[in-house]
Amino acid sequence: MSGKIAILLAANVAQRHVDDLNAAFDVHVLPEDADEADALLDKIGAEIRGIAVLKTPITRELIDRLPNLELISSYSAGIENIDTDYAHERGIPIANTSHILADEVANLTLALALNVTRNMMNGHLHVRDGRWPEGDMPLTHSLGAMTVGIVGLGHIGAAVAKRLDCIGAKTAYSGPRPKPVDYPYHASVRDLAAASDMLVVTCPLMPETVHLIDADVLDALGPDGYVVNVARGPIIDEKALIAALARNRIAGAALDVFETEPHVPEALRTDPRVVLAPHIGSATVETRQAMGDAMVDALANRFGVTIRR
Amino acid sequence: MSGKIAILLAANVAQRHVDDLNAAFDVHVLPEDADEADALLDKIGAEIRGIAVLKTPITRELIDRLPNLELISSYSAGIENIDTDYAHERGIPIANTSHILADEVANLTLALALNVTRNMMNGHLHVRDGRWPEGDMPLTHSLGAMTVGIVGLGHIGAAVAKRLDCIGAKTAYSGPRPKPVDYPYHASVRDLAAASDMLVVTCPLMPETVHLIDADVLDALGPDGYVVNVARGPIIDEKALIAALARNRIAGAALDVFETEPHVPEALRTDPRVVLAPHIGSATVETRQAMGDAMVDALANRFGVTIRR
Repeated sequence: MSGKIAILLAANVAQRHVDDLNAAFDVHVLPEDADEADALLDKIGAEIRGIAVLKTPITRELIDRLPNLELISSYSAGIENIDTDYAHERGIPIANTSHILADEVANLTLALALNVTRNMMNGHLHVRDGRWPEGDMPLTHSLGAMTVGIVGLGHIGAAVAKRLDCIGAKTAYSGPRPKPVDYPYHASVRDLAAASDMLVVTCPLMPETVHLIDADVLDALGPDGYVVNVARGPIIDEKALIAALARNRIAGAALDVFETEPHVPEALRTDPRVVLAPHIGSATVETRQAMGDAMVDALANRFGVTIRR
Repeated sequence: MSGKIAILLAANVAQRHVDDLNAAFDVHVLPEDADEADALLDKIGAEIRGIAVLKTPITRELIDRLPNLELISSYSAGIENIDTDYAHERGIPIANTSHILADEVANLTLALALNVTRNMMNGHLHVRDGRWPEGDMPLTHSLGAMTVGIVGLGHIGAAVAKRLDCIGAKTAYSGPRPKPVDYPYHASVRDLAAASDMLVVTCPLMPETVHLIDADVLDALGPDGYVVNVARGPIIDEKALIAALARNRIAGAALDVFETEPHVPEALRTDPRVVLAPHIGSATVETRQAMGDAMVDALANRFGVTIRR
């Protein structure tokens, strides 16, 4: 045996991170094939003390095969693939990277918010397609004059709020409980929507947040309101969003995530009031590297192992 | 006579501003027809004490017809339509609105900078056209990790710098002289470009700034560099920009202004590395209203007249 601590690698990450893990740990790659995975866990399940995970489901059944598991380290911010309730019950902490990618996702949020309010996609196409000589684009509205309701003021929501402060927009927020901040808090997302010109969704996907942004919330946001989603697709009821757009009950949407991505309903794809992005919130070279490093570091810190970079 | 101070209105602005001016001043609209203008100036040129102007050329010849002119109040930030040297020689101050529109233009600049670095236009089209199921977009680079060189740290440039501070990007700048700020100063735009990952052009258009961003500056910016222009088209040598793109000597450009707008060269319109906007820097309802109000207020303040809104 190597004397190293055994971990399970259930994350298709860059070679740099695999190399880092291999240098510091006894790494067992979780096979995609269920039978192979089963055989591996039979053999070394009891040795495994940490998991490095990207999107692979970390179910109660899997956790039960790892009696000495001490940490689940997630490459992503979103951990809807992990049975967090059961991990909690078993006393197994979960590390994620929402603090690492918050700035990048907040920058993308700002781009989406400005793009949908300033009509940037249609402006680009107006020039690209040679239509500008026929006339200017209509005036738009200033994000700096809006109140933006942040749904979930975690690491990402707080980074968005900081940027809104900087450009002069007002921030309000909702979430399970008030935070020690000066922004107005609304316990109900509907009330937040009614008080906002734009909703920005940054909360985690959990059973309680599926379709949190429904027809009622969109109606409260109103015909001059915008919705931006950089969290997870199923937090917005897409059918309700499509219906609200069809009835001009909402001014526009900017979406980085979708309910059944990469498949996006045609009604959203072809609506000129919708700004689209292919789930690129954290998708820069710099941030993806930092996320992988953080996933490795969380394991290294837990087990007192040094990573040499 | 009305007893009101006479001003010349050479600006096609919203009725609100025309009404404000009419309530406070004896307003003479400058005819577009040269003969009609000539006849008007013969008749009332000596009475005129202020000008409200948008894009109309305020030439030495026109100024000479207005011996009692005390203020030129411009709706726009850019005053390349005004013979500023001659106005200065005659001791006639010029008011503009760069302090009023700075935040809005800086927000648009941020959108352009994020759009070109995060490949937002192509990402939008990738989803819109149903190509996402075929694969994700490649990773991009983080604006927050870049050094951004601001060409001209005036009201707009400073508002851009504030936003770059907020997202963690580093700022450097060039201009005719150093300012009392902590950002690194480069006397030469070429040196600024060499030290920067992105150039943001916010300086006024003047004889000295025509083609300030030339082949040499773009070459110094380099193949991983981006250029963003929210000032005036002719500050960038578009032929040099097109050539730099063709030779992959620059990574991308985001342009709100063009040399011969609204006509934009096909090479820029069809290049997927170029983000296009139809000169919308200040084009929100809120900011355009504030600009008109500021144009009126500058005249009102100069002549001790009250505007009731």
